[in-house]
Amino acid sequence: MKAILVIADGLGGRPSDLDGQTCAEAASTPNLDALAEDGALGLVDPIGPGIRPGSDTAHLSLLGYDPFALYTGRGVFECLGIGMDVKTGDVCFRANFATVLDTDHGFRLVDRRAGRLETGQDELEVALNRIELTETPGVQVMFRASTQHRGAVVLRGEGLSPHVTETDAHRVDALVLEARPSDSDPASARTADAVNEYTRKSYQALHDHPVNRKRLAQRNPPANIVLLRGASTCPRIPSLESIYDVRGAVIAGGALYRGVALACGMTSIDVPGATGGLDTDLGAKARAALDALDTVDYVFVHVKGTDNAGHDRDAAAKVAFIERIDAELIGPLVDGIDRDATHLAFTGDHTTPIDYGDHTVEPVPVLFAGPNVARDAVTSFGEREAGRGGLGRFSGRVLPILLGYCNWAPKFGS
Amino acid sequence: MKAILVIADGLGGRPSDLDGQTCAEAASTPNLDALAEDGALGLVDPIGPGIRPGSDTAHLSLLGYDPFALYTGRGVFECLGIGMDVKTGDVCFRANFATVLDTDHGFRLVDRRAGRLETGQDELEVALNRIELTETPGVQVMFRASTQHRGAVVLRGEGLSPHVTETDAHRVDALVLEARPSDSDPASARTADAVNEYTRKSYQALHDHPVNRKRLAQRNPPANIVLLRGASTCPRIPSLESIYDVRGAVIAGGALYRGVALACGMTSIDVPGATGGLDTDLGAKARAALDALDTVDYVFVHVKGTDNAGHDRDAAAKVAFIERIDAELIGPLVDGIDRDATHLAFTGDHTTPIDYGDHTVEPVPVLFAGPNVARDAVTSFGEREAGRGGLGRFSGRVLPILLGYCNWAPKFGS
Repeated sequence: MKAILVIADGLGGRPSDLDGQTCAEAASTPNLDALAEDGALGLVDPIGPGIRPGSDTAHLSLLGYDPFALYTGRGVFECLGIGMDVKTGDVCFRANFATVLDTDHGFRLVDRRAGRLETGQDELEVALNRIELTETPGVQVMFRASTQHRGAVVLRGEGLSPHVTETDAHRVDALVLEARPSDSDPASARTADAVNEYTRKSYQALHDHPVNRKRLAQRNPPANIVLLRGASTCPRIPSLESIYDVRGAVIAGGALYRGVALACGMTSIDVPGATGGLDTDLGAKARAALDALDTVDYVFVHVKGTDNAGHDRDAAAKVAFIERIDAELIGPLVDGIDRDATHLAFTGDHTTPIDYGDHTVEPVPVLFAGPNVARDAVTSFGEREAGRGGLGRFSGRVLPILLGYCNWAPKFGS
Repeated sequence: MKAILVIADGLGGRPSDLDGQTCAEAASTPNLDALAEDGALGLVDPIGPGIRPGSDTAHLSLLGYDPFALYTGRGVFECLGIGMDVKTGDVCFRANFATVLDTDHGFRLVDRRAGRLETGQDELEVALNRIELTETPGVQVMFRASTQHRGAVVLRGEGLSPHVTETDAHRVDALVLEARPSDSDPASARTADAVNEYTRKSYQALHDHPVNRKRLAQRNPPANIVLLRGASTCPRIPSLESIYDVRGAVIAGGALYRGVALACGMTSIDVPGATGGLDTDLGAKARAALDALDTVDYVFVHVKGTDNAGHDRDAAAKVAFIERIDAELIGPLVDGIDRDATHLAFTGDHTTPIDYGDHTVEPVPVLFAGPNVARDAVTSFGEREAGRGGLGRFSGRVLPILLGYCNWAPKFGS
């Protein structure tokens, strides 16, 4: 038996998306409809009814974990997702290059994304990794660049805490924030000191860097500071393999999703062309997933474009991307698997309606198909079809249900 | 955006109510049916599947809280609901005037409700509030009368505990019970002592009171003792405003429901004619709710008559009251709101079938309507219609889902 889980980020929509229809309802999805006819649909609250999910907490929940018990923040998943080594006690951050002016009052934000810089990140990373924190001795700091302005930072040392506020003011013309401890633990004060020293030293390391001299000469905003947010430590997540005794792999362009899956014990498969955007190579992901099934028991494929289109409030782009998922990912997967020995689940991690442009609380459609799935009466894919589906409405745990269809679930009790 | 939540207490029924139909199914409800056609239905387990709800715990759960974590007892909500000031550490009780005979064996119960007395409560309250607890020094005791024989009591002082048994024997001819500590905490023993001293002193303060001399002269049972039950302390409930950043108001005739909503941070709107009974002025409640929406973001309207009729095992009264809700409350609300910018939810807090006359475990129908609700195929309101609804079945959290449709939910995670 094999299994494939496909999560389309921000898949869910509202009737306001398209004149009474959601994007998933409006999209032409012959392959998903055929699976719906063979399989069964339901509605899943990614975390729980009336809980508005983040992508990180939703994924933990859909993979079978309780985010209220485990979630410590996003940083650790970003660090893991871009390949950083994270140890127990490390404090992890999402990082981004930004452009600031050094003023008498502090660093004034000019561009939170340093013009979404496309080159030079590796040289800036080298300069950042020479920083030593002398005012907070015993604390090591590691930076890793990922795509564009994005990166991640790990603080390592005795007596650190994730309970510190972010430095990103999220607003142009505001001053870069001082990190503050958010509880009375001395470790939190020490961590805030380390973050603030690092922030100052990132400016010192970057502002006159050759990459930035060149950017200024080309009238591009310099990447002259690193902003930190999402402080978190590595949660103690029992691995999926320890629970189900099968091996899984993740295929995801976005670092966050790779990071969550890695934290749960999957291995990550790099797919050239998997960008985590609307331009991602879905066919390459399908081929990589089918290849992976030669060596692992199940594959989790994450696609991000649906959410991007929702955040961009672009219904046409969302419909087009759902149609691409159907044609370029679902179609080849269905064609490539042994239908008699493979279970497949398709869902989203939350709703991102066009007219709101951010996550909302509504449940999302979920589809299961495979030899052990009892076919229901629904014959096409969409929110309201799922509301009439044979699987009813439930919360999270889509991967455990999928692995359960494969007879891989452990018995609780005897 | 605005929102209205209407909870009809004990709305749910069983097919035994009316020859195969529940009262809600049998009632003629054109306004609810029109909302059902526009909106979507589902089944909600007020607390969880197979959990038989009290009204207090069900309301906490429907408003989005976990009653297993928060609920300490009913007394505190009664105290808050009748306008008493409750501080951290206070022990709160439901109280009722009763009629007893002072015998050699103790106080023998003659009438648990002192003939549902209708007048004189204020003078009795004055006498009760002169009581000083000399045997349990340092404990203050405050009484407040509400409707008929009902009232509430607050004990205040150092070293008190809610873990004491009640004094109401719930049976005529039985003796008034001695309160006992229900754990080994010395504070519980001290609180039981205070309750027992108060019980004796309430008889001393009341039995020869002019109000009671007059009641005896008129052959009415004297209100000559106060019985206490539902000991509880104020739970630490994060306010709805702190979670959703919007302001809500409650309109409820019954003290308990006002109390729960006040404990969750709503403000209370007094509506003359809102009795908490079958005779309540539903039109006045509708007008007050519409007025309130000028100043708050959402209104919670509670109606109690459905439950009263269920407890009275009176199917005709329950059907008639549901039809009054439809005509006098739902109709005017729908007519008075901006349909393009208001979400509405209608449900019950539990099932009260006619042939059982008390709460049962079945889920209750829930209806959502408004611009962000995806219309389902159901076109009328009732238990079985809701079972075919597009929203499936879920547990509690109706208010968070409603506020989520309004885009007011906080994101958990990122």
